[in-house]
Amino acid sequence: MKIDGIHHRSISIRENDPHTVWIIDQRHLPHHLIWEPLRTAEETAIAIEEMHVRGAPMIGVTAAYGLYLAALQIGDASDFDRHLMAKAEMLNATRPTAVNLKWAIEQQLLCLESGGTNAEKTARLLANAHKLADEDAETCRMIGVHGLELIKEISRKKNGAVVNILTHCNAGWLACVDYGTATSPMYQAFDAGIPIHVWVDETRPRNQGARLTAFELGQHGIPHTVIVDNAGGHLMQHGQVDICFVGSDRTTVTGDVANKIGTYLKALAAKDNGVPFYVALPGSTFDWNMRDGVKEIPIETRNPKEVTWMDGKTADGRIEDVLLTPETSPAINYGFDVTPARLVTGLITERGICGANEREILSLWPEFGPKA
Amino acid sequence: MKIDGIHHRSISIRENDPHTVWIIDQRHLPHHLIWEPLRTAEETAIAIEEMHVRGAPMIGVTAAYGLYLAALQIGDASDFDRHLMAKAEMLNATRPTAVNLKWAIEQQLLCLESGGTNAEKTARLLANAHKLADEDAETCRMIGVHGLELIKEISRKKNGAVVNILTHCNAGWLACVDYGTATSPMYQAFDAGIPIHVWVDETRPRNQGARLTAFELGQHGIPHTVIVDNAGGHLMQHGQVDICFVGSDRTTVTGDVANKIGTYLKALAAKDNGVPFYVALPGSTFDWNMRDGVKEIPIETRNPKEVTWMDGKTADGRIEDVLLTPETSPAINYGFDVTPARLVTGLITERGICGANEREILSLWPEFGPKA
Repeated sequence: MKIDGIHHRSISIRENDPHTVWIIDQRHLPHHLIWEPLRTAEETAIAIEEMHVRGAPMIGVTAAYGLYLAALQIGDASDFDRHLMAKAEMLNATRPTAVNLKWAIEQQLLCLESGGTNAEKTARLLANAHKLADEDAETCRMIGVHGLELIKEISRKKNGAVVNILTHCNAGWLACVDYGTATSPMYQAFDAGIPIHVWVDETRPRNQGARLTAFELGQHGIPHTVIVDNAGGHLMQHGQVDICFVGSDRTTVTGDVANKIGTYLKALAAKDNGVPFYVALPGSTFDWNMRDGVKEIPIETRNPKEVTWMDGKTADGRIEDVLLTPETSPAINYGFDVTPARLVTGLITERGICGANEREILSLWPEFGPKA
Repeated sequence: MKIDGIHHRSISIRENDPHTVWIIDQRHLPHHLIWEPLRTAEETAIAIEEMHVRGAPMIGVTAAYGLYLAALQIGDASDFDRHLMAKAEMLNATRPTAVNLKWAIEQQLLCLESGGTNAEKTARLLANAHKLADEDAETCRMIGVHGLELIKEISRKKNGAVVNILTHCNAGWLACVDYGTATSPMYQAFDAGIPIHVWVDETRPRNQGARLTAFELGQHGIPHTVIVDNAGGHLMQHGQVDICFVGSDRTTVTGDVANKIGTYLKALAAKDNGVPFYVALPGSTFDWNMRDGVKEIPIETRNPKEVTWMDGKTADGRIEDVLLTPETSPAINYGFDVTPARLVTGLITERGICGANEREILSLWPEFGPKA
């Protein structure tokens, strides 16, 4: 990922200070780029819960580093494992929908199994957090390698005319360690010289599209246009969308996808207009125990103020938070919705592209299939 | 319609000043209720184009009064008809999608046909504007009478449990002279003591739901909850919506409906979840010459700043306009989309409820059918 032409990762530890994890406090984008230091598990939990960072892969990796910070806090104290488990529980409670969070924490807790001193465990937690971050970057890169083929094919069919891609929310590098999931094919297509243009759903209530995806694409130089969430159906009716790429926060083994609220509406419009609708996701978002996404995936409700208030930058450069509704009107704020597998053309994973159904998913992840 | 418990119409001439037409400048709602005087056709055109007033019926009636104001401006000058036609053309150009605008202006121009002095024509233009306003109020009342039956039926089936209604944009009394179209059944149900609750789509980019519908319902005491436009599909998947009521800006003779951008997405979700989707509309929104709404209805594109900027009230009571996107990200702003008739359960009109198809529409409006 590039910011002002320089390559960064969304989360990192700097060489001169091994006790601090750096993230971008994404709440201030696109108007201000603020790097935030995390020094405790509690700061990490706040950063996840209050969405300084968001996006399934990024949440997972941040929580993993948070457990390393927890280990530093515990230091030489006795009962290391018990203390760490408590911090893990606190981190796990921050966001209920994203399955990566639980997954990454579980991966970290495996570091306790081989025992040893507090220092040894702490070193393993750090190494494993780095490993998860590296793996996530590589996973996203591979999602791009596979997704690129879909864009290439459309570009060929259109004889090189601009490929119009619609995306919802931010499944970009800000949501991951690098590259992004839904955006990874876009970056690779652009870097390969294929003309593309991206319709960026603003993605109310938190406007991750208008704030983050637009920022990312702009920094990379990719042509894009911000639209309200209401506009995608109209564009698809009029042949202005060639393909949709979105991310996933949790995916059932049957191919149902929980993603940012409103994804389902775009999938319906894509289906109604014959537009391919692809979900880009790392294998870590699969929930191998769930079969009916609409019924089973817990959907987080968030603070209604995210609906009734909006912040942005005034013409003279001040950041202001403004009320949009009558003072007395209540609001409700669902974070996600579930897109049933029947509306999903395919899943783009680090292991390749497959249909949104159990057979094809398990053909890529046979280790989770029925025992032979 | 009630504001602070007192009955008002959205547009009126006050007894003590026959040369001024009063509207609510809706851009300041819900935070400030500002009555605006219109004294010329040009002020009227600005009020329509810049959306001090909006909504198909209200636009039509406002333009009708605008032609009366034009007549006052012309006064004793010669070439009355030619001058008036020029003002009519100016008013007609303000909003391309709403067919009521054209219709109301045509109704007014018929006043010229019987000739007479400038003063006689002016008096006829005033009387006819009042007539159009009265007819609109009565039309909306009758839409409520018919739509009420749908709510009563659901209430019966639910044994009196709260009926949950979803609406998009503002097809309320602010969009009409009184009662509203989509809201008219809600007001009548509430006044009849039927327990209802309304999900109010905020309706980006101009937030007519969050600003206007929430204001209207709140003033009338109707329980409601504001949601982002992305949330309706999730609510329908989970049985939280019993029926949808929306308005229409133009309706083809085949039943396709042009309404605020995003209506199509809600209609798709309603279809997918078996939720009845009704469009409430006065007969004046029918375009008897159009058969394919998606192909034929012109869709207005508006200033992209409506997408990239948002205004609201700060915690200390100032109105501020804030930028939501990166400075360099372009946006596009479609005002409407078209919902194909196949997604519409029925049309609620002043003449009764009918299916969204040519046969049933013409059974209510036989005068526009094939000559016997």
